[in-house]
Amino acid sequence: MDSGPATTPDWSPSGIVTLTTDFGLMDPYVGIMKGVILGENVSAKLVDLTHAVAPQDVRSAAWFLSRSWSWFPPGSVHLAVVDPGVGGDRQILLAIHEGHAFLAPDNGLLQAFLPSTTLLWPLDLEREDLAEPSHTFHGRDVFAPIAARLAAGTLPILGGAAVEGVGGIKFPESVQCPDGRVETEVLLVDHYGNLISGFCPGPEEANPGLWEVDVAGHLVPGAKTYGDVGSGELLALLDSYGHIEVAKRDGSAAQALGAGPGDSMTVRMKTT
Amino acid sequence: MDSGPATTPDWSPSGIVTLTTDFGLMDPYVGIMKGVILGENVSAKLVDLTHAVAPQDVRSAAWFLSRSWSWFPPGSVHLAVVDPGVGGDRQILLAIHEGHAFLAPDNGLLQAFLPSTTLLWPLDLEREDLAEPSHTFHGRDVFAPIAARLAAGTLPILGGAAVEGVGGIKFPESVQCPDGRVETEVLLVDHYGNLISGFCPGPEEANPGLWEVDVAGHLVPGAKTYGDVGSGELLALLDSYGHIEVAKRDGSAAQALGAGPGDSMTVRMKTT
Amino acid sequence: MDSGPATTPDWSPSGIVTLTTDFGLMDPYVGIMKGVILGENVSAKLVDLTHAVAPQDVRSAAWFLSRSWSWFPPGSVHLAVVDPGVGGDRQILLAIHEGHAFLAPDNGLLQAFLPSTTLLWPLDLEREDLAEPSHTFHGRDVFAPIAARLAAGTLPILGGAAVEGVGGIKFPESVQCPDGRVETEVLLVDHYGNLISGFCPGPEEANPGLWEVDVAGHLVPGAKTYGDVGSGELLALLDSYGHIEVAKRDGSAAQALGAGPGDSMTVRMKTT
Repeated sequence: MDSGPATTPDWSPSGIVTLTTDFGLMDPYVGIMKGVILGENVSAKLVDLTHAVAPQDVRSAAWFLSRSWSWFPPGSVHLAVVDPGVGGDRQILLAIHEGHAFLAPDNGLLQAFLPSTTLLWPLDLEREDLAEPSHTFHGRDVFAPIAARLAAGTLPILGGAAVEGVGGIKFPESVQCPDGRVETEVLLVDHYGNLISGFCPGPEEANPGLWEVDVAGHLVPGAKTYGDVGSGELLALLDSYGHIEVAKRDGSAAQALGAGPGDSMTVRMKTT
Repeated sequence: MDSGPATTPDWSPSGIVTLTTDFGLMDPYVGIMKGVILGENVSAKLVDLTHAVAPQDVRSAAWFLSRSWSWFPPGSVHLAVVDPGVGGDRQILLAIHEGHAFLAPDNGLLQAFLPSTTLLWPLDLEREDLAEPSHTFHGRDVFAPIAARLAAGTLPILGGAAVEGVGGIKFPESVQCPDGRVETEVLLVDHYGNLISGFCPGPEEANPGLWEVDVAGHLVPGAKTYGDVGSGELLALLDSYGHIEVAKRDGSAAQALGAGPGDSMTVRMKTT
Repeated sequence: MDSGPATTPDWSPSGIVTLTTDFGLMDPYVGIMKGVILGENVSAKLVDLTHAVAPQDVRSAAWFLSRSWSWFPPGSVHLAVVDPGVGGDRQILLAIHEGHAFLAPDNGLLQAFLPSTTLLWPLDLEREDLAEPSHTFHGRDVFAPIAARLAAGTLPILGGAAVEGVGGIKFPESVQCPDGRVETEVLLVDHYGNLISGFCPGPEEANPGLWEVDVAGHLVPGAKTYGDVGSGELLALLDSYGHIEVAKRDGSAAQALGAGPGDSMTVRMKTT
């Protein structure tokens, strides 16, 4: 019996590589990683998703990538390097999902959002053509060359049988109560001060006439878009991630309400 | 009679798309927009102008774009998405000016700096091939695909007769008094702490021997460049935008003077 | 006798241009510079190293570039514009080193890290095909077009005989004492709060079992990688720059120790 993978994933690249890291933009770490990618594959098209993930915050990286990848064309490589276990014995995983490739450390990042049936392939770095990596910067020494080759069409050497995803990291869930209430929490505050909740309503619930949101002691009415309320007023709307968020028109809801990640939010669904 | 545009603008693309937004770089909003652009047109060359416009600050976006677009080659698409009216009934405008294409919400952004004779074409989004847009992120759902197609040479479907620009948003003006004084204000403070004024002298006035600037209780002498004064000294010079600015050599004039946007500045022109 | 250069440097471009500046990302200065580059050479591949160098901090720019350039493929152009002398009579220097091109003001930036035998060629801007430059933004008016042409294979016109580098700017040095101690200092604090020292051990010293680091009153044990200590513990490891750094696992050493650039660090090498 061959201990290698029974089937190799299908892969047809677009040439695009997206980058999600906790490197920040002060240091040249992102630029160095891009230099290595272009050195392997000068045609790669590099797109920053964000480098402002808080250091070691695997969950936020997973969230940002989960809400971004599908806006890129199939064939894109999505590289996520938030890697507190760098230099240790954690593996590096490859997943191919709906024609996109995902590359990340085996720290729950990919498992947090890829369907649990997605196969996650550990890489065999010993057999990969790589210089001896440092103990602190596998973004540069391992992820970058492998992403570059993926973007050129070359799959990495796989380290054995793929495993199915098991969700280690969880996003805040929402619990639907019998009376129609949905209990959730503030998942993140974005650049505008919008309070993005953990509640992603289904199509039949996505009607702002049917909800209002209780957060930080305020009851915020549902609305379709910012212009439906006056300047400075609060509203609860379906945001571009598909989640219910609380926003302040022409202002910051987070500031106005003193609310932040982890605070509880209750979406009251009016039964129809 | 055809209600459509009498003439279609001429357009020959360079493939470049510049991006000016108030999205910030924390969230993946800019990256998502780039994903959509590349999905429509994988050859597009994307250049960030700035994403640090304060939320909903249409005037600053207009100013930054007004001072930047002409440094790009003709055929560039300039996408400006500061869009407090997203989800409402504001239109999206296309302008072609000196071989460049400009795409922005109809909120005064383009009217603030394009010549008032420039035709502004409303888009007919109903007839454009687009998925149903969200109520909050037209940068992703409308502007990105249209900019991508523009960069590939395809003009969007125009929604009727073009209108001429009418300047809603105004940059701080400068008023020339009979005694040679010019009354203006601090238009913005840049990254270096330079106080950029609203006064853009004509060629015959662009002589630092002829001016001195009164700001925040200080009279600052004119100079040609930073090296003309000692380290730590203030000077008033013609900046790279073509405006008079007050700077501190090797330091921040804004910090030294406690001055900021909106503070009055008087340029005293010596009559010759 | 010809006063021009005796030999012209060999140059074969990759098309890549890296950018290191103190421009920040608030203003459109970086974007404008990219517009000029693409206007001259629409095929240039632009990579940001960092734009977060503190205003006028030539030494940090030199450090970041020194640790980044070799990760790019040969043929890359490295443009560094931290230019407090802009508008004065400082020259602009070109160096070709190991197949890479470096372009920077003559303010010690390149001399700080290129081998002292590297030839530094002053440019003859009078003879170069350039519009009249501003007095404040040579990044846009001089460096950008010349970098664009370099990336397309055209060397700039050289202004005379090249000179050898003479190190004006110095990075913190480390002094090895007879008892095995190495006296150095904190060179910089990175985004993670790691304290990067001025000590770059040779291969025979690069053994974390052999050192411990004294900084801010703490004696920090050597380790190979973050995972070798518990969460929240301090360690002294060989970082990705090849220097010894003090880090806190899952946290910020700078914050934990209240330490920053210039603070003394002593690496105690155990004699074997």
